[in-house]
Amino acid sequence: MFSFQVEATDAHSEARLGRMVTPHGVVETPVFMPVGTAGTIKGVTPRDVEEAGVQMLLANTYHLRLRPGAEVVAKLGGLHRLMCWNRPILTDSGGFQVFSLAELNEIGDDGVVFKSHVDGSLVRLNPEIAIDIQQKLGADVVMAFDQCPPIPCPRQEVEAAVERTLRWALRCREAHRREDQWLFGIVQGGLHQDLRLHCAERLAEIGFDGYAIGGLSVGETHSEMVDILAAVTPRLPADRPRYLMGVGMPRDILEAVATGVDMFDCVLPTRNGRNAYAFTAAGHLRLRNACHALCDEPLEPGCDCYACRHFSRGYIRHLFLANEMLGPILASIHNLRFFQRFTGRIRDLIREGKMGTIRDEFPVCAAREP
Amino acid sequence: MFSFQVEATDAHSEARLGRMVTPHGVVETPVFMPVGTAGTIKGVTPRDVEEAGVQMLLANTYHLRLRPGAEVVAKLGGLHRLMCWNRPILTDSGGFQVFSLAELNEIGDDGVVFKSHVDGSLVRLNPEIAIDIQQKLGADVVMAFDQCPPIPCPRQEVEAAVERTLRWALRCREAHRREDQWLFGIVQGGLHQDLRLHCAERLAEIGFDGYAIGGLSVGETHSEMVDILAAVTPRLPADRPRYLMGVGMPRDILEAVATGVDMFDCVLPTRNGRNAYAFTAAGHLRLRNACHALCDEPLEPGCDCYACRHFSRGYIRHLFLANEMLGPILASIHNLRFFQRFTGRIRDLIREGKMGTIRDEFPVCAAREP
Repeated sequence: MFSFQVEATDAHSEARLGRMVTPHGVVETPVFMPVGTAGTIKGVTPRDVEEAGVQMLLANTYHLRLRPGAEVVAKLGGLHRLMCWNRPILTDSGGFQVFSLAELNEIGDDGVVFKSHVDGSLVRLNPEIAIDIQQKLGADVVMAFDQCPPIPCPRQEVEAAVERTLRWALRCREAHRREDQWLFGIVQGGLHQDLRLHCAERLAEIGFDGYAIGGLSVGETHSEMVDILAAVTPRLPADRPRYLMGVGMPRDILEAVATGVDMFDCVLPTRNGRNAYAFTAAGHLRLRNACHALCDEPLEPGCDCYACRHFSRGYIRHLFLANEMLGPILASIHNLRFFQRFTGRIRDLIREGKMGTIRDEFPVCAAREP
Repeated sequence: MFSFQVEATDAHSEARLGRMVTPHGVVETPVFMPVGTAGTIKGVTPRDVEEAGVQMLLANTYHLRLRPGAEVVAKLGGLHRLMCWNRPILTDSGGFQVFSLAELNEIGDDGVVFKSHVDGSLVRLNPEIAIDIQQKLGADVVMAFDQCPPIPCPRQEVEAAVERTLRWALRCREAHRREDQWLFGIVQGGLHQDLRLHCAERLAEIGFDGYAIGGLSVGETHSEMVDILAAVTPRLPADRPRYLMGVGMPRDILEAVATGVDMFDCVLPTRNGRNAYAFTAAGHLRLRNACHALCDEPLEPGCDCYACRHFSRGYIRHLFLANEMLGPILASIHNLRFFQRFTGRIRDLIREGKMGTIRDEFPVCAAREP
């Protein structure tokens, strides 16, 4: 039902081309998963998402558990049926959200109690509950419940979070039952390489179907992130998928691929799209800018997305200024396609042994952080 | 380039089946035109609109003139190219909007000056300007600039509005040049049958390519509207299209068709869709209601729209409660298709001589006004 194979590796980096088979189809890696937090990629239909070439998407356990609730999703046929997405899905465990978004009332080894942003009620989350919910949602890949410390954070707090994450990882491994789901462990450890490597080793001893690197893209610099990835990714089991959570910008993805990461997720395509920000290989466009008013060009010449095949920048700018929903819809469709074209070219170039040329095709990757 | 033919008439009413040929294709009547105020049917892509079976849509001169401006639309290739809609378009003249929405600074026989809701600047609109703008937008059917009085309104004010509408109609007729556009006149006269018939006769003397009934659906009762239509519609030139502006609910459309109306426009499918209100043949659904939470049925069983083919009511309710854009998108897609299925069945039944059975298929038409 499941398999993962590395089909090619880059001669000059740790980059690798992989093939992941899941109950809902094949995923070629490196793969970028857009985020459908509440069971929908914001602003677009699943048909648009399919047409953008998306192979796999992510949904958030934290949000779906609060609304509509895991039991409701299960009664409506599970997440694939609910959102009409027949390709693979990954659900996170809620760990990142409870530690970064929620109002926490209680935190201990058993888990956390937080205040629901939907109705203010107190909600408990721990390893067993996170796994139970994810089994009800029914994604192809589910994640262990982890404690995600902020950056910066005192070393001893990071150490404690790593140890708790490891205890919770074991409980998740023991609680997980569905054979049609893969369970991934999550490496924490902030910017401390030794803690990261310790966490990775222990997780590998427990044994997971894949390994994620969490707790990055939370405020560190680009080079801090790349340093951690360079040290940690190659030490994760080479025969299992490696997933960098919540990343990111094209440059971040490219650097992470070079360290051996296979999977990515991020809200950037749709969040930025809703805010009139379009990604292109050459850089980015701010679509409200007056310079686009009379422009009859597509968002990105040569792009094969629905938005670029049919509409001018001038029109899309007008839609944003007039607060018309079609503006965010079209920019999101384009950005979703951009990230698929980008990761698709990365796969092509790994296969062809030409990874070094990606920056020529996507000058956006050379851009320094703003 | 243009033609209109009545192909069948109902034996028991004035209802008629027509075929209108325009530079952008054939329209079968009775036809329902959804409204794309600012150059987009709110919340959906033109592909969704085509798939809903929409033959022709309406766009608002008033809004497009203020933003992005008629010259911008012309420079971006005209309205069809701008919004990627290659089927027929009708633009209204702005008359209804300036008299119902705008802050008027000046009103006289030459026209009106109103305050732009976009930037507060003073904007002039009169018959020549309304025609000039509509020629720049490039719709297939354009409307004369009229004065639309409210209901209720003192008779002498309605009389004055009718006379001004007639003077303006003549100026529009003289100002209009594009041979690839049809120009329709607009009958005003409030709830006064004699004023309506007077206005209709004078417009017919000037000679237009079609005749609209304006100034209804502005607060009168259903039976007041039907009485006016029963008196006026059959007296409009029988060989030209007849268009009831801004209507409406299925019941209103059905009654109007029975008096001989061929064309309709209304914001209801998308406005109500955005507000979680779905039309069905049996009645309507309030999609936020708790009764839909676990419902795995589509919005309307048997409906062939994209929303009904793929998604459950339970999911769509969840989307509305979570404020996800996909809720309004799916409800709008369904409602657009509903109005096309409804008017499509009206055409079928006129052809088959069975108009009397429409209420059996669409019990929603029997519903009294709320």
